Amino acid sequence: MGLVVQKYGGSSVADAEGIKRVAKRIVEAKKNGHQVVVVVSAMGDTTDELIDLAEQVSPMPAGREFDMLLTAGERISMALLAMAIKNLGHEAQSFTGSQAGVITDSVHNKARIIDVTPGRIRTALDEGNIAIVAGFQGVSQDKKDITTLGRGGSDTTAVALAAALHAEVCEIYTDVDGVFTADPRVVKKARKIDWISSEDMLELAASGSKVLLHRCVEYARRYDIPIHVRSSFSGLPGTWVSNEKPESQGDQQVEHAIISGVAHDVSEAKITVVGVPDKPGEAAVIFRAIADAEINIDMIVQNVSAASTGLTDISFTLPKTEGRKAIDALERAKGGIGFESLRYDDQIGKISLVGAGMKTNPGVTASFFQALSDAGVNIELISTSEIRISVVTRQDDVPGAVRAVHSAFGLDSDSDEAVVYGGTGR
Amino acid sequence: MGLVVQKYGGSSVADAEGIKRVAKRIVEAKKNGHQVVVVVSAMGDTTDELIDLAEQVSPMPAGREFDMLLTAGERISMALLAMAIKNLGHEAQSFTGSQAGVITDSVHNKARIIDVTPGRIRTALDEGNIAIVAGFQGVSQDKKDITTLGRGGSDTTAVALAAALHAEVCEIYTDVDGVFTADPRVVKKARKIDWISSEDMLELAASGSKVLLHRCVEYARRYDIPIHVRSSFSGLPGTWVSNEKPESQGDQQVEHAIISGVAHDVSEAKITVVGVPDKPGEAAVIFRAIADAEINIDMIVQNVSAASTGLTDISFTLPKTEGRKAIDALERAKGGIGFESLRYDDQIGKISLVGAGMKTNPGVTASFFQALSDAGVNIELISTSEIRISVVTRQDDVPGAVRAVHSAFGLDSDSDEAVVYGGTGR
Repeated sequence: MGLVVQKYGGSSVADAEGIKRVAKRIVEAKKNGHQVVVVVSAMGDTTDELIDLAEQVSPMPAGREFDMLLTAGERISMALLAMAIKNLGHEAQSFTGSQAGVITDSVHNKARIIDVTPGRIRTALDEGNIAIVAGFQGVSQDKKDITTLGRGGSDTTAVALAAALHAEVCEIYTDVDGVFTADPRVVKKARKIDWISSEDMLELAASGSKVLLHRCVEYARRYDIPIHVRSSFSGLPGTWVSNEKPESQGDQQVEHAIISGVAHDVSEAKITVVGVPDKPGEAAVIFRAIADAEINIDMIVQNVSAASTGLTDISFTLPKTEGRKAIDALERAKGGIGFESLRYDDQIGKISLVGAGMKTNPGVTASFFQALSDAGVNIELISTSEIRISVVTRQDDVPGAVRAVHSAFGLDSDSDEAVVYGGTGR
Repeated sequence: MGLVVQKYGGSSVADAEGIKRVAKRIVEAKKNGHQVVVVVSAMGDTTDELIDLAEQVSPMPAGREFDMLLTAGERISMALLAMAIKNLGHEAQSFTGSQAGVITDSVHNKARIIDVTPGRIRTALDEGNIAIVAGFQGVSQDKKDITTLGRGGSDTTAVALAAALHAEVCEIYTDVDGVFTADPRVVKKARKIDWISSEDMLELAASGSKVLLHRCVEYARRYDIPIHVRSSFSGLPGTWVSNEKPESQGDQQVEHAIISGVAHDVSEAKITVVGVPDKPGEAAVIFRAIADAEINIDMIVQNVSAASTGLTDISFTLPKTEGRKAIDALERAKGGIGFESLRYDDQIGKISLVGAGMKTNPGVTASFFQALSDAGVNIELISTSEIRISVVTRQDDVPGAVRAVHSAFGLDSDSDEAVVYGGTGR
């Protein structure tokens, strides 16, 4: 038996009862002969409460101090978890991100891990301890200041430690049973996926699936760490995410569905820059202005220019939360671009179909559009990658569109039609 | 203008408003040209809430993890305070005990400071920052584990940093206006003391005065750091505590009252060991048993032996919280001691009169007993030092006894009779 890294999110350790339940699960893994490293998030709403406090004392909490504040959250949960484990008769020690050797850059609030030196964790394990590590935090290499890793940071901490400690698996415990073929709140017939490739998982995460964040999957793929996403409540096997399909998940050559799942995202808005002169370099100026404001954009579409005016429209999507900043940036850059007006639309939704199988099955795109058409859904933007097709629609159309596509590709749980390699495609 | 260390307790930073009020006061000191180091406790009830959480997951929270948990409290308050200061346009950086160089031994929950290496604090100050330091916490020299300093630890942190940084003064901000001649809740006519010697303050602290803890005053005396205890709410000058009377507090040769104040303490209990053989070594066996149980005792009285039986009684006082443990320890040692029975009494109170003046004024003791007698208070135990007399009485008698003594020594605020050097004594 080797080393496992387990990560528990805030909902799994929301209160004392949750902490005791999680402690039992950890002790089980230890009893099964594993060395166990546990990464834990802050309890339930702790982080939100701390943010609220910060906003009460300062309208713009500063990076360094904001990180110092937020890291108190994991400090509380990890110490309590270690106590609960000791209360079950097993040895446990908790470590801050800094103590665990999570070295980051100095970008406060969204630091990136640049090295992991888990000497103290290794020592604690060798002495028979279960090691509890604060997720989401590290220490900056140059200034030795406390940093946080931003959204989904605890998952990244877990994968990074798993890589540094050469763990067998990184188990991500959460409040759902795994990764589903679609959001089960939207599609009642969504199926839990037993195994999904890192590549497909990356596309799902980028397309709105919230179970694992892109950054954590990317890290796991790079270091070839298998992730097992599962529920801390049910104890059932969840979804394995790895570069190669494990033998336990059946023969890799057959029965691999073309489509892994359908993701949707209603957190984005669309900005249309109307009346842009259709000449070289205009798009570059627009997106330089957006990039300088540190805004990440998603899809971009440029309309065909109207010959009569020599003007075109450029649309792009971005997180709603960045909408105001993007509009401001474009207004400031208006002189250099020379567009006519800006249109802002936050009533959009994105539906994405993901699956490595579509690389070799040319019918997928057509089937996807047919399903949307049959459901009466109008398509506003389209973007594709080798293993993903995404469309933007009216937000109100999203639930129906997801259900229609999920059903059309045989993903419904009562369907026998899951499209597999060697099948006909569509 | 030199360097000042300011310490703010939990009641001063109980909420966002409190933090903003304290931030303004800190910025004032900075504007007055001082380099400012601030030591801060956890907000209001935070520590109690964390202890409550710990008890929910484990009946006996372990030392190392308990310290890790509790130190989250100051992390929150110090980060918020730094944010609030930055919001006022001044630079501030917060530091954990470990980052501030507070090095301790490894005794979790009540560690002792063994060194202070404030290199990062000095750098932050030299760069123009206000440095905010977490009180109550440090890092162990050998294992690099997070430790806490126990009760009143933040005051000790402040004094230790003041000593290491050669501060002009250590200002302890609290929710009262300073040290009073008696507890103002008991004696309405109690007066704020403008200056008190470290020596007298040590005795007051040991006798039940809660404004400053013995440990903090002892540290300040050893390193000759003047303490200024004052209110974070009123902004009025408070009480100076120092080895030598500062010039600003008037000529040292005259007008120094014989008595600094009257302290009382109702947190102790009395244990009487009844029927101890009156022979050499018996007391040693009893107090070895108590010491082995790590219980600190206060007063000890041995009755005159009854000649007819050769047996005597030994009484001592100790914190009520240690009562159960002491009884258990004595019962276990009963065979080796051979006493008849144990009596436990938690309805006692202690009244102490403190003042360096009593060294040279032989009438003080007599006046003290006369005042108690006039108030109809029965004395159960007596103990004295060079500058203190303490008596144990029934707990119900304490308020009346304190008022009577306070008045008898001319300490009442409407009295002109404060007994001074060169006066007649009593």
